[in-house]
Amino acid sequence: MVEYNFIELAKNAKQASKKLATLSTEIKNKALLAVAETLDKNKSRIFEANKQDLEQAEGKIPQAVYNRLKLDENKMRDMIQGIIDIYELEDPIGKILLQRSLDTGLILTKKSCPIGVLGIIFEARPDVISQISALAIKSSNAVILKGGKESVNTNKAIMEIIQSALSSIQEFPKNVLTQVFTRDDVKEMLEQDKYIDLIIPRGGNSLVQFVKENTKIPVLGHADGICHIFVDETADLEKAKRIVIDAKTQYPSACNTVETLLIHKDFEAQNKLLESLKEANIQLMFAPESWHIEYSDKILSVKIVSSLDEAIEHINEYSSGHTESIITEDRENAQIFLSAIDSAGVYHNASTRFADGFRYGFGAEVGISTNKTHARGPVGLEGLTIYKYTLQGNGDIVADYVEGRKQFNHKDLL
Amino acid sequence: MVEYNFIELAKNAKQASKKLATLSTEIKNKALLAVAETLDKNKSRIFEANKQDLEQAEGKIPQAVYNRLKLDENKMRDMIQGIIDIYELEDPIGKILLQRSLDTGLILTKKSCPIGVLGIIFEARPDVISQISALAIKSSNAVILKGGKESVNTNKAIMEIIQSALSSIQEFPKNVLTQVFTRDDVKEMLEQDKYIDLIIPRGGNSLVQFVKENTKIPVLGHADGICHIFVDETADLEKAKRIVIDAKTQYPSACNTVETLLIHKDFEAQNKLLESLKEANIQLMFAPESWHIEYSDKILSVKIVSSLDEAIEHINEYSSGHTESIITEDRENAQIFLSAIDSAGVYHNASTRFADGFRYGFGAEVGISTNKTHARGPVGLEGLTIYKYTLQGNGDIVADYVEGRKQFNHKDLL
Repeated sequence: MVEYNFIELAKNAKQASKKLATLSTEIKNKALLAVAETLDKNKSRIFEANKQDLEQAEGKIPQAVYNRLKLDENKMRDMIQGIIDIYELEDPIGKILLQRSLDTGLILTKKSCPIGVLGIIFEARPDVISQISALAIKSSNAVILKGGKESVNTNKAIMEIIQSALSSIQEFPKNVLTQVFTRDDVKEMLEQDKYIDLIIPRGGNSLVQFVKENTKIPVLGHADGICHIFVDETADLEKAKRIVIDAKTQYPSACNTVETLLIHKDFEAQNKLLESLKEANIQLMFAPESWHIEYSDKILSVKIVSSLDEAIEHINEYSSGHTESIITEDRENAQIFLSAIDSAGVYHNASTRFADGFRYGFGAEVGISTNKTHARGPVGLEGLTIYKYTLQGNGDIVADYVEGRKQFNHKDLL
Repeated sequence: MVEYNFIELAKNAKQASKKLATLSTEIKNKALLAVAETLDKNKSRIFEANKQDLEQAEGKIPQAVYNRLKLDENKMRDMIQGIIDIYELEDPIGKILLQRSLDTGLILTKKSCPIGVLGIIFEARPDVISQISALAIKSSNAVILKGGKESVNTNKAIMEIIQSALSSIQEFPKNVLTQVFTRDDVKEMLEQDKYIDLIIPRGGNSLVQFVKENTKIPVLGHADGICHIFVDETADLEKAKRIVIDAKTQYPSACNTVETLLIHKDFEAQNKLLESLKEANIQLMFAPESWHIEYSDKILSVKIVSSLDEAIEHINEYSSGHTESIITEDRENAQIFLSAIDSAGVYHNASTRFADGFRYGFGAEVGISTNKTHARGPVGLEGLTIYKYTLQGNGDIVADYVEGRKQFNHKDLL
């Protein structure tokens, strides 16, 4: 279908990333506005392409995937508004994180900078392409995108329109955004650790698991979302009901949906709670085999535990490290839970469904990470940055310090 | 030689890490002082063990490795002082990085926390074991250490003494520090991504390269250290001489030593500079094959470039991303260089040898990272932390916001 050499593309993206790293906020914002405007002007072309994809997909993909593939006026408006939102966010690049005088006239500065080249693999949601493009532009990262095959026409149309917008900004480097299309490209992407600095898979568990197992490049994301709620002895029944029902039914296929409910054996309203869950059409499972299942449906594993400690141990053993919540009126128990649970999000008397970049106020989200390094939890623009150290001297050499002619004074200037 | 099951050890380390995560600064500092004191009291036992290692190694290892293996009163004093220094550093855990009200009574807090379990692989420097142990204790991370076989007796003696000090602190969890000994252990360590969260190899290029190629666990470190100095057209000859000689000869086998010198074709004092480098016993190489060599010796690749841009391009192509420096009196060129070079450290009129955690004022250093995610450059205690989000609510559910009954207000409280 397309003729290109992946390694060439990756090399060009790397070169583009170096130029992008020195671009001013002004030019980046100008580019974002141009992208939003050009998409708005060319909506009909995108709908046309989307219609082609929908026709080809009809009957061949599950209804849920079909719905995600389908673009309508509402989704298009959200897509364009999403770019404007990112335009309005603060530039995450060039922030001074530390400024320190090591000695008179020898100044160390730690400044945020882009990571370089991102490899993004996503499934059948064509609106991802504009969101990721906007995040990449704002954070000065080049990006290579591989979308799902169901949305290939829509993706191509959107990307061509974005590219035409960017080419109207003279100062904006070429090759910042690159789209690839085949399964082989995914394989190549995962191998190019020389040119690609971070892989972000956005899709189901099996995609993320496959990516994590097949690359040396750092991967940002989460495979499973096995979230827990622990209803403590002193829990308020009404809060427990509200929160568990929200966390299980508000959007059952989301990764921050609760999968296992732990209940303290001395919680008196246990039966009332379980009754109201059944009334909310939640199917309850009581078998140990269910403790590591992510249902993505209105099914909930239930376990009675004899103590807060047992709940903590269960969660630290079975959780995927995404988000957990304790329902309790005992502040001390809440504090122990918040401190002892090793997950990206740990809540007290709140639904696990709050684990989300928009709800946290990050404006835009690349995804939710269960990694223990770099970025954890909902990841916004900040997760697409790293830092470098610059040192301003005037002929300074280390021998002077090693041989005792000079001493460091290490004074923070900020 | 030893009987243990690696997976059991790793599992125990993971459990220990959960307890360690909730430990107060006071207990951790008490543990650090006990370790320093107990090592001081048992010096003679360590020297005895070290003597055994030295006798077995004599004639079988290079003199440089033998010297690193040998512990004397000075190294022992530094080792103990190093622990006291870490004791005096601020606790990196429990720092509030963000506190935000999402809505009335719904408070999000982002707090630094430990990573979990670190796997450390190091070569023949037994003083590493006490330094890493102290860093692990202060940052609340459990650690599994694998040292070089030459120093096995010394390592065992040091670790036994540290363990006996820790066991005197009642509140301090067991299994925080674990030592393993065989090559098979390294293989197992690299496979246990369920229990080990970060691998830090401390040793030569081949060790680091091997580790990076054989694990899915994130690796913190650097393989090569191909550092560059660019002498610009307007460079001051005296500064250029001082800096290049320092960067090449002050400690030629260090990773922050310069390996390639780029000189602007219009730098008038070119010959004088090269003459003085030869006088400093630096051997100069002018062939393109040399541009990717890390000599770790008094040998320097030299290339004449026709512009600042060519220098930047050369560096971004051949550098290992460690540290580079520009020697120039032109502030604008310096700014362009600092901004365009994509390395962990980018310097102006200073020796690349400053790239070091102690010189940067971090107090202690785990190593120097050329990664583009998590931590870059010299890594101190902060690089051994991640964060988690806690959310304090009062029965809050997402449906209220999705269905428009409530709105987020997103107010930062710090």
